Amino acid sequence: MNSADGVSTKDKPQAREPAPRVAPLEVHASAPALGWYSDTVHFGEIWERPILDKRQRSIVTVAALIARSHYAQLTGHFNRALKHGLTPTEVVEVVTHLAFYAGWPCAISAVRVMQEVFNSHQILAETVNQSLSRVGLAAEPSDADPDGLAPRCAALDEYTDRLVDGDLWKRTELLPKCRSLATIACLVAQGEVEMLRKEAVRGMQNGLSADELYEAGLHLAFYVGWAKAERAVSVFRRAAIS
Amino acid sequence: MNSADGVSTKDKPQAREPAPRVAPLEVHASAPALGWYSDTVHFGEIWERPILDKRQRSIVTVAALIARSHYAQLTGHFNRALKHGLTPTEVVEVVTHLAFYAGWPCAISAVRVMQEVFNSHQILAETVNQSLSRVGLAAEPSDADPDGLAPRCAALDEYTDRLVDGDLWKRTELLPKCRSLATIACLVAQGEVEMLRKEAVRGMQNGLSADELYEAGLHLAFYVGWAKAERAVSVFRRAAIS
Amino acid sequence: MNSADGVSTKDKPQAREPAPRVAPLEVHASAPALGWYSDTVHFGEIWERPILDKRQRSIVTVAALIARSHYAQLTGHFNRALKHGLTPTEVVEVVTHLAFYAGWPCAISAVRVMQEVFNSHQILAETVNQSLSRVGLAAEPSDADPDGLAPRCAALDEYTDRLVDGDLWKRTELLPKCRSLATIACLVAQGEVEMLRKEAVRGMQNGLSADELYEAGLHLAFYVGWAKAERAVSVFRRAAIS
Repeated sequence: MNSADGVSTKDKPQAREPAPRVAPLEVHASAPALGWYSDTVHFGEIWERPILDKRQRSIVTVAALIARSHYAQLTGHFNRALKHGLTPTEVVEVVTHLAFYAGWPCAISAVRVMQEVFNSHQILAETVNQSLSRVGLAAEPSDADPDGLAPRCAALDEYTDRLVDGDLWKRTELLPKCRSLATIACLVAQGEVEMLRKEAVRGMQNGLSADELYEAGLHLAFYVGWAKAERAVSVFRRAAIS
Repeated sequence: MNSADGVSTKDKPQAREPAPRVAPLEVHASAPALGWYSDTVHFGEIWERPILDKRQRSIVTVAALIARSHYAQLTGHFNRALKHGLTPTEVVEVVTHLAFYAGWPCAISAVRVMQEVFNSHQILAETVNQSLSRVGLAAEPSDADPDGLAPRCAALDEYTDRLVDGDLWKRTELLPKCRSLATIACLVAQGEVEMLRKEAVRGMQNGLSADELYEAGLHLAFYVGWAKAERAVSVFRRAAIS
Repeated sequence: MNSADGVSTKDKPQAREPAPRVAPLEVHASAPALGWYSDTVHFGEIWERPILDKRQRSIVTVAALIARSHYAQLTGHFNRALKHGLTPTEVVEVVTHLAFYAGWPCAISAVRVMQEVFNSHQILAETVNQSLSRVGLAAEPSDADPDGLAPRCAALDEYTDRLVDGDLWKRTELLPKCRSLATIACLVAQGEVEMLRKEAVRGMQNGLSADELYEAGLHLAFYVGWAKAERAVSVFRRAAIS
């Protein structure tokens, strides 16, 4: 008996086969139950669920780790992301995208970890196809306020329109659907429910299904804690209905 | 004059005895006022208040530090936790419990710090009585949905029922009251008010008094900042009334 | 054409002069678009906007970095803060202030970084004018509850009145307006909307204009992510009207 939405019965302690060890050895040595939950449930079960593929799960995971400054885990998950088929260009673009949503310090620190992983794979900077020819082009100021007389309170809105929506989201280094996955994972990790609601809607316009959103919520429970995941799923429920 | 709920007059600068230095020397050298607040108020007064004993304060502190990835402070507070009477088994179980509430990366990184502290005390893995014989047993899938046809949006709820409430909370390595203290401290640290409300109620069912909840809120003000503590206390007020 | 509230056209890729490189070299090498956004928009444009001067932007930045434990970026920004005219005494006081709003672990870890920066500038402890003669004086317990019979639920309120509002905010090492900037940046970084509302009002009483608040929100978008900045600006809108 095996339920797609539930906890699988295989690898239960009663009749357990030697499970592949995914969690670090020190976790198994010091905290055996945590090791068991890690290998059997977290990696053995959640990562294997079919609704999101491993490439998508890597985007979600890397975005959540960057948003929460979990650099110790980021090395391993950049490696997994490359193994799961993300191109170096896509990895660089996820980090670039997150500068805006997680904040500059998160992204700048992630670049350091990323560069080490790229070095270990002998990925050269030349192979990263992140062209500068497009950057900032869409961020042209409009003619609407040539003299800068717009009220100060609208300054952030203007940057959102031109720089984030008008420039960053238009970049072709990452598909809009993947960009939405990274954004949504970041907002779940931050507990930013209000913007999450809007980005869940944009995500569905970019091709994410409601099932994929729920699955991202379940996946993130293991990375950002149960409370933030439950709040996210409740946002997705309302977004999916409307 | 000395008020149990207020700021004590002893160790005031006017007539100060040489206070025991708890804050690191560099804090006293570089930021003397912070050193004074640390020794006189934070450690000299808050940690000494009677409503929560030091064992409980250690659980609250360690949980908050793990939830916020404050590994630099975690070494000292794992040491204090052992000194205050937490067994190694209980420490391991607090970390395991927090994997679910703070997220896996927080717990995995905490294991590394914990192992170093255990090594320094020559605590062997064999003395940690964290049996694997029980783990996952309660996480049996129910017969309610043998074909995995439950809607995807309910997947997280199922994992909550079976894995978190049905398995993790049933483990006997940590008393339910201590498990509640760790959970509540984690949720306060995360600012997760919605789940905090539910866990405050579960905490009172597990034997926490309203006074202990308020005191945990005051204690946490010094670890996670005043704003998150104020929101927590206002949640506890409503939970204690109902 | 150049809009004070928008994205400037100078330094656009079409006709770009060699821009001063502010972002680390490795960012330009590994993530060129992020390097471009960093130098041209973040440092070349946002930091140069006139509504907040660089001294104020340094207070906002340092407070946000401390609140989010971004120690890798803190070294550079402590250096910038000194260059922008903050005195060592003011820097120490910002860190001390944040112990209460960001939590002790954030402040204690920041002291370490600060001390290294001070050492590199040969700033001696003696030059820091953070007198202990005043600390804790205002925190005298009132006569209202000499026997400590006040309900436990009010303990945090008492500490707020005496220790935070009555003592910390009265310290003269930092002007109230600067103290408000640091507090507000910390609360935006934490997503603590409820207390942010109150502190925006106190900030305006301390001399912050509505325009300065909005500008701090825009500045913080680049340090704590777009979502927290948008929520902050919406709080400021309501605070500025009332």
